[in-house]
Amino acid sequence: MTPAQRPHIVIIGAGFGGLYAVKQLAKADVDVLLIDRQNFHLFTPLLYQVATSGLEPGEIAYPVRGILRGMPNVCFLRGDVTGIAPDRKTVMVHTGHGTREERYDTLIVAAGSRTHYFGQEHLAHHAFGLKTLADSVILRNHILKCFETAAWTADPAARDALTTMVVVGGGPTGLETAGALRELYKYVLSREFAHQVDGLNGRVILIELRDHLLAPYPPRLREAARRQLEDMGVEVILGQSVIEAGADSVRLSDGRTIATHTLIWAAGVTASPIAALLGVPLRAGDRVPVHPTMQVIGHEDIYAVGDMAYLEDKQGEPYPMLIPVAKQQGILAARNILRRLAGQPPQPFAYTGFKDRGLMATIGRSRAVAWIFYRVQLTGFIAWLAWLVLHLITLLGFRNRLNVFVNWVWNYLTYDRSVRIILEAEPGAPAERADSVEDSEEQPGEPVGVILAR
Amino acid sequence: MTPAQRPHIVIIGAGFGGLYAVKQLAKADVDVLLIDRQNFHLFTPLLYQVATSGLEPGEIAYPVRGILRGMPNVCFLRGDVTGIAPDRKTVMVHTGHGTREERYDTLIVAAGSRTHYFGQEHLAHHAFGLKTLADSVILRNHILKCFETAAWTADPAARDALTTMVVVGGGPTGLETAGALRELYKYVLSREFAHQVDGLNGRVILIELRDHLLAPYPPRLREAARRQLEDMGVEVILGQSVIEAGADSVRLSDGRTIATHTLIWAAGVTASPIAALLGVPLRAGDRVPVHPTMQVIGHEDIYAVGDMAYLEDKQGEPYPMLIPVAKQQGILAARNILRRLAGQPPQPFAYTGFKDRGLMATIGRSRAVAWIFYRVQLTGFIAWLAWLVLHLITLLGFRNRLNVFVNWVWNYLTYDRSVRIILEAEPGAPAERADSVEDSEEQPGEPVGVILAR
Repeated sequence: MTPAQRPHIVIIGAGFGGLYAVKQLAKADVDVLLIDRQNFHLFTPLLYQVATSGLEPGEIAYPVRGILRGMPNVCFLRGDVTGIAPDRKTVMVHTGHGTREERYDTLIVAAGSRTHYFGQEHLAHHAFGLKTLADSVILRNHILKCFETAAWTADPAARDALTTMVVVGGGPTGLETAGALRELYKYVLSREFAHQVDGLNGRVILIELRDHLLAPYPPRLREAARRQLEDMGVEVILGQSVIEAGADSVRLSDGRTIATHTLIWAAGVTASPIAALLGVPLRAGDRVPVHPTMQVIGHEDIYAVGDMAYLEDKQGEPYPMLIPVAKQQGILAARNILRRLAGQPPQPFAYTGFKDRGLMATIGRSRAVAWIFYRVQLTGFIAWLAWLVLHLITLLGFRNRLNVFVNWVWNYLTYDRSVRIILEAEPGAPAERADSVEDSEEQPGEPVGVILAR
Repeated sequence: MTPAQRPHIVIIGAGFGGLYAVKQLAKADVDVLLIDRQNFHLFTPLLYQVATSGLEPGEIAYPVRGILRGMPNVCFLRGDVTGIAPDRKTVMVHTGHGTREERYDTLIVAAGSRTHYFGQEHLAHHAFGLKTLADSVILRNHILKCFETAAWTADPAARDALTTMVVVGGGPTGLETAGALRELYKYVLSREFAHQVDGLNGRVILIELRDHLLAPYPPRLREAARRQLEDMGVEVILGQSVIEAGADSVRLSDGRTIATHTLIWAAGVTASPIAALLGVPLRAGDRVPVHPTMQVIGHEDIYAVGDMAYLEDKQGEPYPMLIPVAKQQGILAARNILRRLAGQPPQPFAYTGFKDRGLMATIGRSRAVAWIFYRVQLTGFIAWLAWLVLHLITLLGFRNRLNVFVNWVWNYLTYDRSVRIILEAEPGAPAERADSVEDSEEQPGEPVGVILAR
């Protein structure tokens, strides 16, 4: 077929779902346009390590165009999807250089998920999310600034508030973040501030609404996780939620108040707002209901995959928001598009990974829980080793893997966290530049040219 | 002596001058307060590699408190020095948590230098400097955005303006930046954009006011540097300066106009504005005149070292703004303070490094010029290798050295630049947070919480 006749497939999102779909389509006789608001693929499970100064941002972000090398039928557009018109078969994309309307024959929506406050949106203003690379750098800057301020704060109560970190959510992200924060304090910050200020605390409090951590895990591993956290000095509060948050405190559902400047929200995610642009009724978690073929119900030319897609397994449970699900759904959507073009019937989703591999969550140095193949229950060092190997394999890009490995070995041997830099614009730097290549018409009051100044 | 009686030494600046002074004082019977606006020591010679996606910001920044470990008599304060009162013997420091007045018995001023426009301050609004870590990340984002925009720009002239980069200044920084930009285009960006857009250029233009590059070098090396740059495709324009700059063009002194969105200013630096706070008449480059003992003329309790200090050598030339000068002056200032406390006479500055080691500048992959011991003139691969080894040795911190080495080897073998990520806040992210630990009273209109959105 000539390029003009070739089917035009648009994919929204360069996460695992979108990229695995791209790979399936790269050698087919189709044109692909991949759209993402960022120019990099992000390995979200390690965001907490960037936030706690263990890894560089660039070590968990891989440039999309690097991934697309050798795929001459795939183009990339960096921009924000602001509209989908199924009747016109177009997608509206707001870019730094104007708004574009991109035509599609088939659309794959794979825009992932974002931090969700479950009806507690009033907390968002005082909470730090951990879903984007910017989130992780903003949180890193904030934590380091809290300690720099604490070092020069004479009042013990005010100082404690600066060095108390509250993490909400007893899932893997919450555990990992709480554990890493405590280690950052214990092995690094406490040593570097001790001679300058007496009585510096580094409280880390993990709050979970249920009466146990890690809901999908067997009881023995839930308990092991809690015990390992408490051994490290993390305070675990179960059966409570945060109902109010202010500049320097949070209030729990039992009325308790905790003085803190740092509320980290790891209590859940919801589908990207792009789901709502499809104009179909959404399901739990704002996810888009799809047929087992990954086609959006009511739109046979649109596929949704990964965190955004709502599909139930045989037990009537929606598939979880996990990387292997996104990968396999991305692959299936792409294959079903090609089958349809070839006049073949589509195939239904049959998830394999979840059953096969199991679950694991790391807590800290040599501390983790793992439920391998949903049979073997591991805790401590061996579970941690399994987690480490799995994540190194999943990270995209050899150089990233190598650097992450170097950093992990270094941090393990030295108890160090080398990336504890506060990266922000110089005070007094010009907040706005007239010659930005990006138009900022739509946010006239918003500044350009400022780094992280929180 | 009890802590209350111990001499209190304040050092402004955690660059090479300040840190080497700190090391001298670490084991002495004195109290030291180190002040810097950043919480990291920055290895400025490699900023251009961050700007061109070759290195991570954290690889050339080392946390100050990590360096100060094991120095119990040294405290660190992150803040901006806004005033010096020699009569009261205090320093005013604006921190994120209010303004502090810090008392000193002896003060060392070592705040380095900043980008200087030589009376062409009107260019600053449209130019990118390369003196701070923020500068380098802002420039990295800008370059990558220019290419993302160019890929979707149909008009060839507008597209060329987006992918044309102008570097002003024929010193080492200008050469290195121009060479690295050209390599970023040639080996990485041209390959990743070629299939998407026809006729993408990546012009890099280096402009120098003199009729040769690298003024302090012998003619043979100046010529070799120019030839190596031109072999790579860098356009070298000599005997010209930029006299006007706009959003999408610059004008040269001969009237020529170059369409570009990227003007990088590497044409010179001047002493930090902290020099002006001392209230003494400044010398060339806004530097503080000092006695050969490094004491500021007119203030025997204040020492100035490094880029900020104006001191002439035997030929009547001011010592250059180079790392070895700053190191040795920092060491001498600290030793002279200790000698004075011990009742001994101070020693004069006797610079050794400049004469002994020579000069070198890298241009790109296997391309450099080096003037070893001011005798041996090297060009090409062997000069490049010498440059590489020297910079690895000078970089602070073993882990940084290891990661930089891994990245360099990786980039060399694969022609890759892995860190080409545009790191900025999500569109629509909250631009301001009420619970920042930093007060922002002094810049009420300025936003907090935004990354790099240039």
